[in-house]
Amino acid sequence: MKKIEHIGIAVKNLEDSNLLFEKLLGTAPYKLEEVVSEGVQTSFFISGPNKIELLAATHPNSAIAKFLEKKGEGIHHIAFEVSDIDQEIIRLKSEGFVFVDEIPKIGADNKRIVFLHPKNTNGVLIELCQEIK
Amino acid sequence: MKKIEHIGIAVKNLEDSNLLFEKLLGTAPYKLEEVVSEGVQTSFFISGPNKIELLAATHPNSAIAKFLEKKGEGIHHIAFEVSDIDQEIIRLKSEGFVFVDEIPKIGADNKRIVFLHPKNTNGVLIELCQEIK
Repeated sequence: MKKIEHIGIAVKNLEDSNLLFEKLLGTAPYKLEEVVSEGVQTSFFISGPNKIELLAATHPNSAIAKFLEKKGEGIHHIAFEVSDIDQEIIRLKSEGFVFVDEIPKIGADNKRIVFLHPKNTNGVLIELCQEIK
Repeated sequence: MKKIEHIGIAVKNLEDSNLLFEKLLGTAPYKLEEVVSEGVQTSFFISGPNKIELLAATHPNSAIAKFLEKKGEGIHHIAFEVSDIDQEIIRLKSEGFVFVDEIPKIGADNKRIVFLHPKNTNGVLIELCQEIK
């Protein structure tokens, strides 16, 4: 666990929220990226040493659409940067943590990602991410 | 807005959650602090350039007790470090943001803090904090 890489926030309207977070943070998103396989449109803001990722659903069956329906807008996940995602999965499993899916998949922003199950982490959805070189 | 100072996570049992986050982050909390006026017991972990604050209620009428009752455990707020909290309140008010209470109060970890109303920030409870010199 090197550091918090980004915080993911689920929003209904990406265009409106981009303007809102631009006012809040004093900086525009540096990247917009659609992850078709996840049914999500994202935008990224730099905030000091971290990033903030806004996530809007592009498909009614996507995880973000379901989250918005169930919980409304708000913080969706915290992503920690790791140097070796496979090794970190082994370490955390041995500590009793449970993963949503143990095989890393390709996420936004050129990363291999995996999620810990929030039932074992005080309701917090935690992502591990490793940059693809 | 200098950077994300910490992420606050509401938990039911601080002792259990301290052990859990110690396993997750690979480091023990560096500080435990009770904020009697807020009815909250906190613990702080270092995570790279940021902190993670766990919050447990010590009083059934505290904001954290009410949050836990309504939403369950999970991420409670994101705190941004600012160099001049009074100036930042003026700037954000002029941008249309609404504060829960416009007068900063003394929070945990030797800080003046203020919260933006989540109804105007995509459901995210955002704290501004400035260290007291």
